[in-house]
Amino acid sequence: MSKVIAINAGSSSLKFQLFEMPQETVLTKGLVERIGLSDSVFSISKPDGSTDTEVTNIPDHSVAVQMLLSKLVSNGIVASLDEIDGIGHRVVHGGEAFDDSVVIDDATLAQIEELSELAPLHNPANVTGIRAFRTVLPNVPAVAVFDTAFHQTMPEKSFLYSLPYEYYKEYGIRKYGFHGTSHKYVSERAAQLLGRPIEHLRLISCHLGNGASIAAIEGGKSIDTSMGFTPLAGVAMGTRSGNIDPALMPYIMEKTGQTADEVLDTLNKKSGMLGISGLSSDLRDITKAAEEGNERAETALEVFASRIHKYIGSYAARMSGVDAIIFTAGIGENDIASRARVLRGLEFMGVYWDPALNSVRGQEAFISYPHSPVKVIVIPTNEEVMIARDVSRLAGV
Amino acid sequence: MSKVIAINAGSSSLKFQLFEMPQETVLTKGLVERIGLSDSVFSISKPDGSTDTEVTNIPDHSVAVQMLLSKLVSNGIVASLDEIDGIGHRVVHGGEAFDDSVVIDDATLAQIEELSELAPLHNPANVTGIRAFRTVLPNVPAVAVFDTAFHQTMPEKSFLYSLPYEYYKEYGIRKYGFHGTSHKYVSERAAQLLGRPIEHLRLISCHLGNGASIAAIEGGKSIDTSMGFTPLAGVAMGTRSGNIDPALMPYIMEKTGQTADEVLDTLNKKSGMLGISGLSSDLRDITKAAEEGNERAETALEVFASRIHKYIGSYAARMSGVDAIIFTAGIGENDIASRARVLRGLEFMGVYWDPALNSVRGQEAFISYPHSPVKVIVIPTNEEVMIARDVSRLAGV
Repeated sequence: MSKVIAINAGSSSLKFQLFEMPQETVLTKGLVERIGLSDSVFSISKPDGSTDTEVTNIPDHSVAVQMLLSKLVSNGIVASLDEIDGIGHRVVHGGEAFDDSVVIDDATLAQIEELSELAPLHNPANVTGIRAFRTVLPNVPAVAVFDTAFHQTMPEKSFLYSLPYEYYKEYGIRKYGFHGTSHKYVSERAAQLLGRPIEHLRLISCHLGNGASIAAIEGGKSIDTSMGFTPLAGVAMGTRSGNIDPALMPYIMEKTGQTADEVLDTLNKKSGMLGISGLSSDLRDITKAAEEGNERAETALEVFASRIHKYIGSYAARMSGVDAIIFTAGIGENDIASRARVLRGLEFMGVYWDPALNSVRGQEAFISYPHSPVKVIVIPTNEEVMIARDVSRLAGV
Repeated sequence: MSKVIAINAGSSSLKFQLFEMPQETVLTKGLVERIGLSDSVFSISKPDGSTDTEVTNIPDHSVAVQMLLSKLVSNGIVASLDEIDGIGHRVVHGGEAFDDSVVIDDATLAQIEELSELAPLHNPANVTGIRAFRTVLPNVPAVAVFDTAFHQTMPEKSFLYSLPYEYYKEYGIRKYGFHGTSHKYVSERAAQLLGRPIEHLRLISCHLGNGASIAAIEGGKSIDTSMGFTPLAGVAMGTRSGNIDPALMPYIMEKTGQTADEVLDTLNKKSGMLGISGLSSDLRDITKAAEEGNERAETALEVFASRIHKYIGSYAARMSGVDAIIFTAGIGENDIASRARVLRGLEFMGVYWDPALNSVRGQEAFISYPHSPVKVIVIPTNEEVMIARDVSRLAGV
């Protein structure tokens, strides 16, 4: 038995979950928010099920990590820090360098830092988290788990943009895809639930959260996905536009006087469901407004579901058919109405689902009829356990 | 009986075709190229089947039109210009103002000019052609036939981008779609060939030329299409990128030092099959290179077909199934290998096609097996006859 901690560090936050392996028991989990601000918030679940929350001043990630470790001991979750056998860090971008998780050493850490160019909003924060643990627990093995790694199996015809080829060779411009850890988890879990070897399955995984991506997974390998060079591409999301006509950026620049970077910011933060509805990026708010008769809210819900619906058709074609469709992440696990909108009208390709079975939130469930040739499954995602598993596998703990 | 001339004016060219209506007999056709240059080329087919070609100085479109008219008489195609009863002009962009062709008067001409903002490369040239005919044949009724009009039936969930809603209201930013006259022609022709009322059909039309677009046509109405605000969007084309991650424009600007407009030019003129292959925008050249073992040429062919293949799956989902898939335009009508690549692996949705039947070029043919639930039809497009029909219908000639 060993204890492994899974870490997801953002620019001002740090999420953690401590596992007992190989049982995958969650010993505690928690979140540090507003790091660097005077009113930082630290919360951690205690063995009795209650939550220890503290508002204090946490100036940087190293202090957050030190606080986390002392809270583990003070709350009786571990007797001593020596019990921590491994650390797993979520890292957004692994580029083409990493097609699997990797033990972090000076060389791999340098590579992850270099990849900040491809993910300037994410990798630097992930690196900050890695460095904080290296400072505080220098002798505990650490593993980096990349959002992009699972998609490195995509063939060239999926990942290559039809741009001048030298843009790929010189600047690394290609489709990378994201949410890989989640797509991998739910596809492996789907194979278990289906009782069939993953090598024989064609799966379409719909990770629908505030960010959303669809993946075509054939024989356990990602062969296509909706996000691209960045997480902006693909379906319409909470605040992100997804795919638009590439000619729109200069047009919007000219019309609104924004710079290219400002338009990019608009596409990332003010578009998607928020942009169409004008109300909120949260589908719950939009659904409520639509029920009250707000037409733009209704349109936003239709656009959201329609783009996903079309990706499902597209990826079924990509794999010459599909055995199961998976819904996961906040919306995929919980939004009954959006799942219904996405699934409506897929009978022609063998998708028969039961509105009664679809009335499920946040738990594993088949929502297709038993006789449906294509199964539809709701599977709560669990990126943290995937991180812990990779730490066990790669660090031997 | 009446005579109607169909005109397609580019910035330095003018294509024409003279029809006897309602029989739709082609009396002559031809092309003026390099207008405004000293070595302009005028060519027109003669009643005996030969071509009259002349290299001369044609300074502007009015002179081209005058020359065209005098050639009609001198070649004995018409006895006098009074025989011309109507003129039809292809116009690229009709915006939201035009959901059908329209008789051109001062007001509609002004509207078409205003729409130049949405199609700065095309509408001004179309207007030049219209003005030239108004000067030379001021009393002959003229009709504008828009590339976008057929797609005006798209519902909001198809045409709306997930951008701030005011971009639609204030700047007209939405999906318009193009090649509408072609998609309309082949869908109507498909219904005839299938012997079924178009109101009951779900069709996917693949217009594959140097520009390429796919349309989902339900009950004779376009409900979705791959091109967008401009003809840059959608599938990968000869030189156009089609859809890419919208975040790529600022990244390419930063990496290459191009302005947004320069990147746009790269996306329009140096991307697509030309960009990937590094060889040519012409699929015939690329196919030849691929056969000789050029890997990037092979990749370009795969990318081209794969994107279309995925759109077919996507639009089948959009319409909850499909009754027929149509191939048209230069590549769609003639490129046997590309059609095969596009169609491979669609059996799961009822598409069974015969490689032997697929060995057809430039003529109407069913290439699906007779028992295939989904029919696949090659239909040479004919935008000119659609223009002539609309002149007859709207100008009453």
